[in-house]
Amino acid sequence: MKDISPWSDELPDDYQEIIDKFGLEKFNVNEFPNPNHLMRRNIIFAGRGLKVISDCIKQKKDFYVLSGIMTSSEKIHLGTKSIIDMISYFQRQNAQTYVCIADLEALCTRNISLEESKKRALNFHIPIYLALGLDIKKTTFYFQSENKTVLHLSYAFSSKVTLNEYRAIYGNSEPSRILAALTQSADILFPQTIKKMPGIIPVGVDQDPHIRLTRDIVSRYKDYNFITPGSIYNKFMPSLDGSLKMSKSNINSAIFLPEDKNSACKKIMRALTGGRKDVEEQRKIGGVPENCMVFELYKQHLIEDDKKLNKVYEECKTGKILCGECKKNACDLMNKFLDSLNENFNKFKERIDDAKILKFKNN
Amino acid sequence: MKDISPWSDELPDDYQEIIDKFGLEKFNVNEFPNPNHLMRRNIIFAGRGLKVISDCIKQKKDFYVLSGIMTSSEKIHLGTKSIIDMISYFQRQNAQTYVCIADLEALCTRNISLEESKKRALNFHIPIYLALGLDIKKTTFYFQSENKTVLHLSYAFSSKVTLNEYRAIYGNSEPSRILAALTQSADILFPQTIKKMPGIIPVGVDQDPHIRLTRDIVSRYKDYNFITPGSIYNKFMPSLDGSLKMSKSNINSAIFLPEDKNSACKKIMRALTGGRKDVEEQRKIGGVPENCMVFELYKQHLIEDDKKLNKVYEECKTGKILCGECKKNACDLMNKFLDSLNENFNKFKERIDDAKILKFKNN
Repeated sequence: MKDISPWSDELPDDYQEIIDKFGLEKFNVNEFPNPNHLMRRNIIFAGRGLKVISDCIKQKKDFYVLSGIMTSSEKIHLGTKSIIDMISYFQRQNAQTYVCIADLEALCTRNISLEESKKRALNFHIPIYLALGLDIKKTTFYFQSENKTVLHLSYAFSSKVTLNEYRAIYGNSEPSRILAALTQSADILFPQTIKKMPGIIPVGVDQDPHIRLTRDIVSRYKDYNFITPGSIYNKFMPSLDGSLKMSKSNINSAIFLPEDKNSACKKIMRALTGGRKDVEEQRKIGGVPENCMVFELYKQHLIEDDKKLNKVYEECKTGKILCGECKKNACDLMNKFLDSLNENFNKFKERIDDAKILKFKNN
Repeated sequence: MKDISPWSDELPDDYQEIIDKFGLEKFNVNEFPNPNHLMRRNIIFAGRGLKVISDCIKQKKDFYVLSGIMTSSEKIHLGTKSIIDMISYFQRQNAQTYVCIADLEALCTRNISLEESKKRALNFHIPIYLALGLDIKKTTFYFQSENKTVLHLSYAFSSKVTLNEYRAIYGNSEPSRILAALTQSADILFPQTIKKMPGIIPVGVDQDPHIRLTRDIVSRYKDYNFITPGSIYNKFMPSLDGSLKMSKSNINSAIFLPEDKNSACKKIMRALTGGRKDVEEQRKIGGVPENCMVFELYKQHLIEDDKKLNKVYEECKTGKILCGECKKNACDLMNKFLDSLNENFNKFKERIDDAKILKFKNN
């Protein structure tokens, strides 16, 4: 099996193998009301503690969804959009929504000052998260560094995990990584200190070690009766050449948000497709959308309507449409998406003072 | 060499060996104005960066002294008094005085809640530190858990020390210990974030690993131009039976502050002395005050005046006084000391609201 850890870029060969190996629950779309496109299309494939959350939705009980923003760069790409789509989904199902700015993690693992993180969060990350669909009135942001409850929980949790466990979970137990992991666990549980309720964390499956660690901590930390948090995993957005995960470090492999339309289109035109060796063959036996990164863009990001997506699929399969035309169509949809994103991004940059950022009382 | 670490109770055989092995500076009493009894009597025996501090004293430049209170129990013993005597010394030489309540350390290494630590600090530790001679008007206390600067520095420092270094320094690199050590370094440097100035940390020499770690961090953490902190080491107060360090965990080995006078006297009467096998021999060749725990009490705690101490020494050496009488004298002095301590302790418990406890502004 390939290396599926928070510090690897490899793409899994087989998601069922991950489910078996990590001991995950298989995601069942029928259990969740109003599933979004990622859930309907099996991009969401697994989770932990899913029934607790689907019950909360169906029975209209309080629960929360939480995600973290790493301020290590002022870039996000389409892979992050899928996470935000999942936060939005739970938000629409009435989850209390928390987004943590992981400025202390950026400080200890990337040496980024708190001031710089704050600037990046206010000027970029918060507006882009809102532009990608989070409800400005219903999303609570907070800075780790200002959240004493999170800090205190990190210290309290430190005695609950041994060094050997860290090494077994992460393969890396440097002090800064340990501190970052403890702080993530504290973040994941923080909303329960405001109101005790179940919570769910949408992440890439590479983040499962953090989830497992947090669930272990809950079972060991009896001073506060935390409810074990759930998680829900999406398959990775592959890089446009299909080789690895989409990644910030490989600029041509990723479409950034926001990104210049021409630049995005150029990348799409160069993307790996499921096309055949020549036009004739493709007209005859059709393309292979399953291997096509452009189809992946349609499926994960550009086409919300399942019927429309099926049409694209069929036209490819039957050789009715060729890769050049299909890519142009993808560019058109990407242009519309980027235009609308840009407009929203600028709007929320101006409205940053309306964003709900938790203020912490002094002692 | 014996185990001289923060987690050992062993007494060193030879302090010169420690100086050589740890690479310490030998303490020279002539370099410090107005030395107290511990400095004059070679109980203070070594340090790091001492000249910077003696220069500050002589040239009336700003510097600070800092110490930490571990709230793991509501007990302190005579060993702690020596540290407080040293804080007082530097305070009288105009050091800005900081005493940190290490509530986060107590949380992560002893699982003591922040609320419990706060209660203990206000009801016990702060009043007893004041009763032992710290100036209520000139001593600034703070709680680690409320000090965001300390918390942020702990995170910032985490990337500056590798796991292997921890293991080499401490022989123990469990997450909670690492977190405690990082937080101690942050405490040691915290006063410099208020005003950049040299500082000195009076500790038992078993704490030298923490000092070394902090000095290493200063040399590696260039974002803030910290001044390398100094340290000054006292020899251990031995247990009353002379076998180990005086320790909270061995009740009969220690005199606690405060302690019931009868109980303290009983312990003194049972203490190891430098007496001979019978009265006749002792009258003839005298006792051995160098091996006597009662003389250690006089020297470290009960007799401030060097001439008086010399008299006790000579009377023992010449066989003029026998152990029984000498112990009774020690009991008398201990009673006076405990009476006065008790009175002061009760006074400062009532005046706890006058103590200067740092309030931290929100963000």
